Amino acid sequence: MFISFEGIDGCGKTTQLKLLNDYLNELGYKVIAVREPGGTPLSEKIREILLNKNNNISNIAELLLFEAARAELIHNIIKPACNEGVFVLTDRFIDSTLAYQGYGRGLDTNYINILNTIATEMLIPDITFYLQLPLSIVKQRYSIKKLDRIEQLGEVFLQKVIDGFDIIASNNTERIIIIDATQSIEKVFQNIKNKLKI
Amino acid sequence: MFISFEGIDGCGKTTQLKLLNDYLNELGYKVIAVREPGGTPLSEKIREILLNKNNNISNIAELLLFEAARAELIHNIIKPACNEGVFVLTDRFIDSTLAYQGYGRGLDTNYINILNTIATEMLIPDITFYLQLPLSIVKQRYSIKKLDRIEQLGEVFLQKVIDGFDIIASNNTERIIIIDATQSIEKVFQNIKNKLKI
Repeated sequence: MFISFEGIDGCGKTTQLKLLNDYLNELGYKVIAVREPGGTPLSEKIREILLNKNNNISNIAELLLFEAARAELIHNIIKPACNEGVFVLTDRFIDSTLAYQGYGRGLDTNYINILNTIATEMLIPDITFYLQLPLSIVKQRYSIKKLDRIEQLGEVFLQKVIDGFDIIASNNTERIIIIDATQSIEKVFQNIKNKLKI
Repeated sequence: MFISFEGIDGCGKTTQLKLLNDYLNELGYKVIAVREPGGTPLSEKIREILLNKNNNISNIAELLLFEAARAELIHNIIKPACNEGVFVLTDRFIDSTLAYQGYGRGLDTNYINILNTIATEMLIPDITFYLQLPLSIVKQRYSIKKLDRIEQLGEVFLQKVIDGFDIIASNNTERIIIIDATQSIEKVFQNIKNKLKI
């Protein structure tokens, strides 16, 4: 089973992914947890390029680099693991690209959908947990340091990303499960377990 | 005016690009010459990744990296130069991707066309010189060292690439001019000058 965790920075998806990873391990399942961009030597090199603030990258090149890192991760890690029946958990996947680069930065969402199709070799998650959180609560949760980052990105941008995630979730109800991420870590995790019926 | 030079490795396009660059400079034109992948700090980093033989890159990730380097080059160098009325000469461009990754490696040519459209922001060359050369002559011209490389790639692969260039040229007669590259350097250059009417 291939499960992705999606949502705005600060929604708690990394924490929930770790909890699920540990829980599945305890139950004796084989689990691989990956993050995007990253997860292979090439993808980590691309991650370095993308996260280095000295690199002033055009929006389209940024999008294509994300997709290149994804293609490598899919081809070398996710696809082989799925074929072996291993649980694959990923911190961000195709929906983040659509939300951030598409709805956030305004790149053509049709193009992004095509790029996602090419990069994933049409392998999409069985289940996606979208940890939904309004911007007001994200801001409350953020430390001063992280607040700087929000302001750097701009609140208008982040609101567009959140709206984007909401639209994507409503367009993919067969795959995406919305989780109310305003709740406590324990309650959110209980919801996730209930949905997985594990 | 935006001019690309295309053809199989060893067809003489780099030599012809340099000759045209010098000639246009002598006539007093402003000229920028670039190579793919490369031409910007980010694109050169991507070039390093692509040409490093220790990096075992999946075909799709390779394609997306080429397109990311192209997007950056278009956005930061080619588009601004074209807007300022500068001659832009490029050693390889969209047709190489289609010929090598599409016809050569067998990736979906429809996808590559879409990727080319995204990466170029729909800016295509005004003229493309395709230096056409059969594989038998390419091999005669190659040094022993280069012959190793041909054998590494495989003759079957290179024949597919050449056939691909021929198909692309016949599908884009309004843009692509076929130059018989079996001729001497001087004669090939004279042909190019004649076609440009410079």
